[in-house]
Amino acid sequence: MEKLVIGIDYGTDSCRAVALEAASGREVASHTSFYPRWKKGLYCDPSANRYRQHPQDYIDSLVEVIHGLLAQLSPGEAENIAALGIDTTGSTPCLTDRNGTPLALLPEYAGDPDAMFVLWKDHTSIREADEINRLAHAWETDYTSRSGGIYSSEWFWAKALHVLRVNEKVREKASSVIEHCDWMPALLTGNLKPEKVKRSRCAAGHKGMWAEEWGGYPSQEFLFALDPLLDGFAGRLDNKTYTSDVSAGKLTEEWAGRLGLPENVDVAAGILDAHAGAVGAGITANSMVKIIGTSTCDIVVTPKEDIAERLIPGISGQVDGSVIPGLIGLEAGQSAFGDVYAWLRGILSWSLGLADNLSENDRVSALHNILAKLTEEAEKLPVTESDPVATDWLNGRRTPFADMTLKGGIAGVTLATTPAQIFKSLVEATAFGSRAIMEHLEKEGVQVREVIGVGGISLKSSYVMQTLSDVMGVPIKVASAQQAGALGAAMCAAVSAGVFHTVEEAQESMGQGYSTLYTPRAENRETYDILYAKYRELGKL
Amino acid sequence: MEKLVIGIDYGTDSCRAVALEAASGREVASHTSFYPRWKKGLYCDPSANRYRQHPQDYIDSLVEVIHGLLAQLSPGEAENIAALGIDTTGSTPCLTDRNGTPLALLPEYAGDPDAMFVLWKDHTSIREADEINRLAHAWETDYTSRSGGIYSSEWFWAKALHVLRVNEKVREKASSVIEHCDWMPALLTGNLKPEKVKRSRCAAGHKGMWAEEWGGYPSQEFLFALDPLLDGFAGRLDNKTYTSDVSAGKLTEEWAGRLGLPENVDVAAGILDAHAGAVGAGITANSMVKIIGTSTCDIVVTPKEDIAERLIPGISGQVDGSVIPGLIGLEAGQSAFGDVYAWLRGILSWSLGLADNLSENDRVSALHNILAKLTEEAEKLPVTESDPVATDWLNGRRTPFADMTLKGGIAGVTLATTPAQIFKSLVEATAFGSRAIMEHLEKEGVQVREVIGVGGISLKSSYVMQTLSDVMGVPIKVASAQQAGALGAAMCAAVSAGVFHTVEEAQESMGQGYSTLYTPRAENRETYDILYAKYRELGKL
Repeated sequence: MEKLVIGIDYGTDSCRAVALEAASGREVASHTSFYPRWKKGLYCDPSANRYRQHPQDYIDSLVEVIHGLLAQLSPGEAENIAALGIDTTGSTPCLTDRNGTPLALLPEYAGDPDAMFVLWKDHTSIREADEINRLAHAWETDYTSRSGGIYSSEWFWAKALHVLRVNEKVREKASSVIEHCDWMPALLTGNLKPEKVKRSRCAAGHKGMWAEEWGGYPSQEFLFALDPLLDGFAGRLDNKTYTSDVSAGKLTEEWAGRLGLPENVDVAAGILDAHAGAVGAGITANSMVKIIGTSTCDIVVTPKEDIAERLIPGISGQVDGSVIPGLIGLEAGQSAFGDVYAWLRGILSWSLGLADNLSENDRVSALHNILAKLTEEAEKLPVTESDPVATDWLNGRRTPFADMTLKGGIAGVTLATTPAQIFKSLVEATAFGSRAIMEHLEKEGVQVREVIGVGGISLKSSYVMQTLSDVMGVPIKVASAQQAGALGAAMCAAVSAGVFHTVEEAQESMGQGYSTLYTPRAENRETYDILYAKYRELGKL
Repeated sequence: MEKLVIGIDYGTDSCRAVALEAASGREVASHTSFYPRWKKGLYCDPSANRYRQHPQDYIDSLVEVIHGLLAQLSPGEAENIAALGIDTTGSTPCLTDRNGTPLALLPEYAGDPDAMFVLWKDHTSIREADEINRLAHAWETDYTSRSGGIYSSEWFWAKALHVLRVNEKVREKASSVIEHCDWMPALLTGNLKPEKVKRSRCAAGHKGMWAEEWGGYPSQEFLFALDPLLDGFAGRLDNKTYTSDVSAGKLTEEWAGRLGLPENVDVAAGILDAHAGAVGAGITANSMVKIIGTSTCDIVVTPKEDIAERLIPGISGQVDGSVIPGLIGLEAGQSAFGDVYAWLRGILSWSLGLADNLSENDRVSALHNILAKLTEEAEKLPVTESDPVATDWLNGRRTPFADMTLKGGIAGVTLATTPAQIFKSLVEATAFGSRAIMEHLEKEGVQVREVIGVGGISLKSSYVMQTLSDVMGVPIKVASAQQAGALGAAMCAAVSAGVFHTVEEAQESMGQGYSTLYTPRAENRETYDILYAKYRELGKL
């Protein structure tokens, strides 16, 4: 009787789930469910960078996705399900009442965006983040020190404070705040009481200013000094957090029934999606998992002794056990990667709008052909010292040293410069950005031996991936897993149910391997060193 | 009986002539003739930047263009022609034999590109220019000091030395060297003997290292030290030069017959095209004539007392009387202007090649629409401090401080940056380049009160011209003359024949006025100051 585990990945638009055989990693079922309210564009205002998700969306999608999974199993096979693990986007927090219920689930708050989860990409809390940074840098304990020294407006406390400030009605009822990745296991295991929630080490450490060295979350004094509206919030969060290989409890009878799952299923403590993806992609000490899409999220794990007590500045956090228990998890990233190429595609496609007699179909087809054609031409270009050099900060810079006011640019342009040369310089710029992150970590004592690529671009563009390997000077292997996040959550869940002793063991058995290996080519190394030096000079890095 | 004067403008591709009434400036005839051999692409190698023109092309076109003019006159009207003036591209020199005959007119050299005129844009003499600069800077007299301190590979001595070096056969016969603008009057007046040629002050001063202060052309010792191949060349050039309001002589009987002109016609000393264009456009003390096409040539005249003995570095020459006798003529320029916009058009048109079902006609029509559409969109954009900023050196920089190794670039790009914003930044960059030239001159004591625009872009793009006025902070008037070079040459010719006493008088009577006046708008001044400061910082100016 093969044990099955389920991984559930809550992304920006949908909830995706996979069911796997624990022993082999064989995928036996997978399903996706789109959030119904979000799909209609409800509760959001993109012009104000306000993005909110209704907790009922998460519940509806969960029910649908699990039923969709079960429908693919053989009769009786569901009985073999031992555990489920959940990863979500983050920081995506929501205010709750005294019982831990997200306010938007209370009838009187059902339509209030401030009572909902504040999605990771919501940027309404810039002022609050500024205040947190100023206070923390002046406080006896600098609570930002394990988050690279800069607290982001995308994170937990800034968002909680913002909605408290702007909405008097939610203020009346709000008693605590919870991350999406913590609420799901708390809900399914019936442990919603704020003080009792088994909170994720990963989310607390990277987004909540939680650290063992200062005894957990920031103190009541700090939060009160930040704003009296946060009075008492510290006392209603348990200062103990949990790595994602630990069970948050068993599925409640009610939820087992509603989902059609056995009652003895373990639900693992939650984890953020990038970190789960890193586990699923097979991260090991000193490898970097780059989740490459419109932007990148870069996860590295490193033995504690390598960085000892050192606080690494200019990254998005260093948290003991946030990815793999026993190792320090480091988070970094590039705020634009695929988006940089998409920008050039947009620029180049503009003239298609001037061709009066071009059918809509032909226009779309030409548009879709742009990046393929640029790639074809760029691959044939030699790499020379006199090539144009670009910077990749068209959406600001996340790492090293977050600075959202930065912009991109290109130098070395002549009358003979072609679209393919511009594309090449942008591909190299994103690779230089990756190298800058790697070198920053190495300067701080964290070695990066290899890169593991995950996500669309890593599977779709061998030109980008080969350039990345050439520029970074390390081998890159591309993870075969199409659902690395759900796979990683499932691996953690398998450990939480005792199927494996460690996450590493789970990775060993359940890993889906690699599709392509890129090795750095020696012939361009020296030229790339010169171009990279120009990139750093251009960007004053 | 109205006196007529003829202006002949030898451009890069064709010879254009106008016949005008001296008293009124009324145009009575105009004609154009394309160089027959050049049109076939003979004797050139664009991949090596080698551009040569056969002297027979100049003769054939002259005959055709004058006959074309005369055919438009009333019977007997040709008898009223008092003078003709000629301007040409430059520096466009040719080696001659002992008698002053361009070598390619000798049967044994008829097909040898090195025996022909070396066109202004020929770049085969880079090494020779380097050697001239090194030697001149070390010599007791720095012969480059009146050419902005840097001798260009596009100029007279570099080109003469280059063809002497590379071609043994031309070496055997070469005895002297002559500018195109000097050869035409010498030929028509029968004064070809090298020592007797009445050479143009304009060409000699701006391109030939001629200056009154060191007694004329560089010394025999200097030229011999540069290369013994130039031994004796100095002695075969008259060290006296002539401003273009002086007659180089009367048309010979032979040429009068061949052209169908009266014998008593005065032929003015030659002038370079940009300088003739400045005269034709109505240049006066402290105005700047900007001849705006793919690149710009900027001509300023200033009273001697304003710059006294000061040597202005980083421009293309300061020559007493090179434009208007009695005033110092200054030459500067931007190596790319319209070419910068054409580059963007080329980049943006690339995707039209991906639209499979687009007819060639529709493709061309969309291509031609690109700049108009960009202009339409750019005009609507506000000018803000956070706009992208570009540099205009996509073809190197001519002024200030020539540096052909420089390249262009753009900074301040975000994911939201549009083609129109890029276009706007490029238009502003070319305007910033113009402002940098103006400020450089002002720093050296030369005031620029107003700009006179000449050439295609000044007539075609009010957006570019208004931006130029806003950025430079001076009024710009656009010359109505379509053939400013030929008009200026005709004005000079009228003076040479005694129809007027001074070039200023000729400008007064024959000037064709201005079509549009742009005045700098106050509202963007402060923002442009900020963007211009960024331009200088970006370009390390």
